[in-house]
Amino acid sequence: MLTRDEVEGARERAAAALAGAGIVLAPAELAAIEVADFGLSHLDEIGLQVVVYVNTERVCAKELVLFPRQTCPEHRHPPLERSAGKEETFRCRSGVVYLYVEGEPTSSPACEPPLSGGGAFTVWHEVELRPGEQHTIAPNVLHWFQAGDEGAVVSEFSTTSVDESDVFTDARVGRTTVVGDG
Amino acid sequence: MLTRDEVEGARERAAAALAGAGIVLAPAELAAIEVADFGLSHLDEIGLQVVVYVNTERVCAKELVLFPRQTCPEHRHPPLERSAGKEETFRCRSGVVYLYVEGEPTSSPACEPPLSGGGAFTVWHEVELRPGEQHTIAPNVLHWFQAGDEGAVVSEFSTTSVDESDVFTDARVGRTTVVGDG
Repeated sequence: MLTRDEVEGARERAAAALAGAGIVLAPAELAAIEVADFGLSHLDEIGLQVVVYVNTERVCAKELVLFPRQTCPEHRHPPLERSAGKEETFRCRSGVVYLYVEGEPTSSPACEPPLSGGGAFTVWHEVELRPGEQHTIAPNVLHWFQAGDEGAVVSEFSTTSVDESDVFTDARVGRTTVVGDG
Repeated sequence: MLTRDEVEGARERAAAALAGAGIVLAPAELAAIEVADFGLSHLDEIGLQVVVYVNTERVCAKELVLFPRQTCPEHRHPPLERSAGKEETFRCRSGVVYLYVEGEPTSSPACEPPLSGGGAFTVWHEVELRPGEQHTIAPNVLHWFQAGDEGAVVSEFSTTSVDESDVFTDARVGRTTVVGDG
């Protein structure tokens, strides 16, 4: 659970990061920046700020904002009844993001799993993305990512996004952020 | 036909416009900016500069650069054997772009068709896009667009791009740019 103040503060930080990356948002988009704590209530460690530009039955495009060392927990996008599962390309716009995917584990990875992550980080093939660099992830491939010390802004180009069908390695994770009155 | 110098000059102008919009490209992407004259040899009037980030069987993402008053000629993306035809979202990043689509004609449109365009501009419902604004075009809908006096940078999020299947209103248009030695 996050408080309204935590959500509002994260929105403001994300808006500043996007502006710093030269990305212009409409006022309604700024007000609707999604703040996801993945149900773990440790937003600064495990979380993500998201702007959804478009999400039709075929195409989705988003901006993702990660605060310094903030982590998106490990998950995959499984095949669905009517599609092969989400395919996504991450393109770094500012900062640095370390993406971990299935494959040969990197011997000295740049990231450690967040302490509050419950140890649910099983893939360790590291792909470092700096501005102008990108990586495409096939459907059903496990992945997680963490920003470097300065945070990161990452564009995501993908097939339809159906967040509620994502499969997280950490069974505690919930994709819906609960906001309390605190 | 364009000369090598014209193509190189257009690439440099496009790179400057992208940098001005805060968009970072990898060196290989800068060197590969596509310069399209649509076979009409009037690049400054009818043309487009394109960076393709990704184009898989399902998803495509590009940046489009338009020079001041440069026009992308009218066309549509028809249904294909294995898909419903290309669906695309245009999002303005810098400058202004005027998008014309099927629908109620706008009484005082902001653009005139380019003189070298052969009169092949038949849809006049105007959608003005400034930074942070976007519009989604369904498959098979006729459209064309022109930048304002300062040019424009536009992100395109779409299904697979199969340029050679596009249907242009002007039968003279060819999607492949021929570069001569001149």
